[in-house]
Amino acid sequence: MMPMTSAALLDRLTAIVGPTGLVTGDELRGRSANWTRPTEPCAALALVRPRSTAETSAVMTACHAAGVAVVPRGGATGLVDGTLCAPDEITLSTERMTGIEPVDPLGMTVVVGTGATLESVQDAAAASGLFFPLDLGARGSATIGGAISTNAGGLRVLRYGMMREMVLGLEAVLADGTVVSSMRPLIKNNTGLDLKQLFVGTEGTLGIVTRAVLRLRPEPAGYATALIACPGVDDGARVLRAAQSAFQGRVSSFEGLWPDFYRLMTAPGRATRPLGPDYPFYAIIEVECVTEESDRFLGLLEGLMGDGTILDAAVASSEEQRRGMWRIRDRVEHLNADGIERAFDVSVPLSRMDGYVRGALDRLAAIPGCRAVVYGHIGDNNLHWNTTRLDAAGNAAIDAAIYEPLAALNGSVSAEHGIGLEKRAKLKLSRSPEEIAAMRLVKRALDPENRLNPGKIF
Amino acid sequence: MMPMTSAALLDRLTAIVGPTGLVTGDELRGRSANWTRPTEPCAALALVRPRSTAETSAVMTACHAAGVAVVPRGGATGLVDGTLCAPDEITLSTERMTGIEPVDPLGMTVVVGTGATLESVQDAAAASGLFFPLDLGARGSATIGGAISTNAGGLRVLRYGMMREMVLGLEAVLADGTVVSSMRPLIKNNTGLDLKQLFVGTEGTLGIVTRAVLRLRPEPAGYATALIACPGVDDGARVLRAAQSAFQGRVSSFEGLWPDFYRLMTAPGRATRPLGPDYPFYAIIEVECVTEESDRFLGLLEGLMGDGTILDAAVASSEEQRRGMWRIRDRVEHLNADGIERAFDVSVPLSRMDGYVRGALDRLAAIPGCRAVVYGHIGDNNLHWNTTRLDAAGNAAIDAAIYEPLAALNGSVSAEHGIGLEKRAKLKLSRSPEEIAAMRLVKRALDPENRLNPGKIF
Repeated sequence: MMPMTSAALLDRLTAIVGPTGLVTGDELRGRSANWTRPTEPCAALALVRPRSTAETSAVMTACHAAGVAVVPRGGATGLVDGTLCAPDEITLSTERMTGIEPVDPLGMTVVVGTGATLESVQDAAAASGLFFPLDLGARGSATIGGAISTNAGGLRVLRYGMMREMVLGLEAVLADGTVVSSMRPLIKNNTGLDLKQLFVGTEGTLGIVTRAVLRLRPEPAGYATALIACPGVDDGARVLRAAQSAFQGRVSSFEGLWPDFYRLMTAPGRATRPLGPDYPFYAIIEVECVTEESDRFLGLLEGLMGDGTILDAAVASSEEQRRGMWRIRDRVEHLNADGIERAFDVSVPLSRMDGYVRGALDRLAAIPGCRAVVYGHIGDNNLHWNTTRLDAAGNAAIDAAIYEPLAALNGSVSAEHGIGLEKRAKLKLSRSPEEIAAMRLVKRALDPENRLNPGKIF
Repeated sequence: MMPMTSAALLDRLTAIVGPTGLVTGDELRGRSANWTRPTEPCAALALVRPRSTAETSAVMTACHAAGVAVVPRGGATGLVDGTLCAPDEITLSTERMTGIEPVDPLGMTVVVGTGATLESVQDAAAASGLFFPLDLGARGSATIGGAISTNAGGLRVLRYGMMREMVLGLEAVLADGTVVSSMRPLIKNNTGLDLKQLFVGTEGTLGIVTRAVLRLRPEPAGYATALIACPGVDDGARVLRAAQSAFQGRVSSFEGLWPDFYRLMTAPGRATRPLGPDYPFYAIIEVECVTEESDRFLGLLEGLMGDGTILDAAVASSEEQRRGMWRIRDRVEHLNADGIERAFDVSVPLSRMDGYVRGALDRLAAIPGCRAVVYGHIGDNNLHWNTTRLDAAGNAAIDAAIYEPLAALNGSVSAEHGIGLEKRAKLKLSRSPEEIAAMRLVKRALDPENRLNPGKIF
């Protein structure tokens, strides 16, 4: 079939989504490329906003017939350019598929359109006395579809898993417009390949997810929260394991903070500094528990102080104090204010983390002009680095210091952000040629003409 | 390429796995087809027992070149004929790949050969003070590979998820001998398609899993266990939700027992009957908790008795009493003794379960000579039926009563057993034509000549 002209394709798309469904020209250029490129306009040929799975299917069928590639777009809050568009591509936004059906309180599930924001789903769950555990700073803009396509993580993975564990069913549109609907609200369903796994974490390269059945949980009854200081990260890990034994599955966060990060975040005028600045390692530990259990939480920490695994600790005795502790972790804008603005997201096995961080800090210290801090969800293997932005050679040296050791340590170049365009060149550090070949086999099977988010991941 | 003769292929396989690695003739016929066919000999051309991933790869390469299909075999304890062989097929047993590497106590992971039994992995975890949560009656024979390929469930899914959630990494051999190794011990690793998901639950149709990195957990500190009686299954569901709120994620089992099942299992000479036999619905509820929490557990049950959600309850006050309660659920041999030997495994959304069970019981009661009982992991949506075995027409009527309503209820024809050969004809009740087509696209991409466990699932 001959490619349609762009104008004919846009007419066809308008017929599908209605006149307000297609965004082009100045209106489109008024939108930014994505959250990390606020001043760069979206470069796509057009942005199309279907209202339903059926319209999404019709859009894909039209683009497929026209030989035009499609880039799916949720809140565009991703950090790896996974939604960046070329001028000959259509970008398909889920922003008009925001419906949230009534919560099933007995089944603890909810059916949503994937354009719904994370926050709106959290609110719908809370309104039914339930809880949607995924949480990110971008909750007001990030969408369920984006969270599915990137397998979003966040602060509570230890307790609830990643987005993958919260999706019971989904509906996806393939590159040729085929609708694959797997919307069963079931925890157990062993009937061949679990199709939803093809679409979780594959960044819109295999299909566009339009609806999902999400799993909800009971609302946490309360929290016990402490900031601790330890002789090293291995001691921190032992605290985590002891808490996981004592509180069986209810350690909801364990955020490691290395000293340079702690000092920067608690500098004068920033978050309150509950513990002295000169300990080798800090962590925020939070456990979901009822008030009656706070003595047991204190007893656990005291026991670990007795044997030197914990050097010092501050326990939040009010919600106000708890929020103060979290500000030490969350106010990452302080990093940008200090010019430490390049963000990295990697995984390392916990037992290798201490050596990895020491080695990388040494290498980074040897790069002229480089400042670097490190922190992260260490119980999930996940470290975030922030560094200064240097010239190309300097940035490459920073990349090498952070990424290169990962392959030998069985680590990953992306813990929770994904690959997108930004980390494409790093993929081979985390995936063998055979793994990449297997991924390509699946990509080719579902999207033989490479029309869905082409160039992302691979 | 011309197919090799069988003899040439067997010579080649012997060269790969050594003289004791190939089982043929009387020795092979001395093995049963599988656990559900104890008197039927294994029909395969040969059983090959590689000692490593490399040998498995060489076996697959040789069989691929010879155009011979391969049926992977673990403990052969599956219930859907997923390991059944035709006379022209090779069956590949993982029984010599049983190695268990030292546990990583900080990372809480262990690397195992997939021929290792479930029990041996449970024991290795316990020897390190940790816990491998998957548990099944067949634990002494069922293998890790079988559990992966069927995404095994069992009694603790509410708390720990299915086998899918316990596999961090794996190594698989594709139909053509390609080794895809994804053995990273990471909780977070967002680097494209999560390849292990292709092999979990696909019953050996996409690859043969030879090694895995498993996630371990802290050992439970203790249990609170009760048998309760309720006005109906919806009340039972409300008890479950209340317990999940009160004990945040630590409800490890919630086993629904309908009255006919309860009466049969607690008949004279069988399990002790802690509660009267005439209640409309029973459940065993178990919570992981420390001894200090037993008052809170009692308080929860008392509160629910106060408002009539629970009619009567018996709480286990010793490990002996706890085991006695579990005998009511576990001693399924009593069903066989009573001739109620056909086993079914389905899923239904919890909010539809009461109507489904009532409707199916009515239909089953109308089939002459049919006795049926029902019980299951209702918090996971999972019901097990056991029925009498009748003639072909009678069995078909039973199948229809149990399976046919599921499609309209968004249920599943297989919750945890898989599809194998036994449920192939039922797959269309749980999967749409588009879903089955998508599964076939992936199958064709990874095994274009249909050499791996052909005819299973589809």
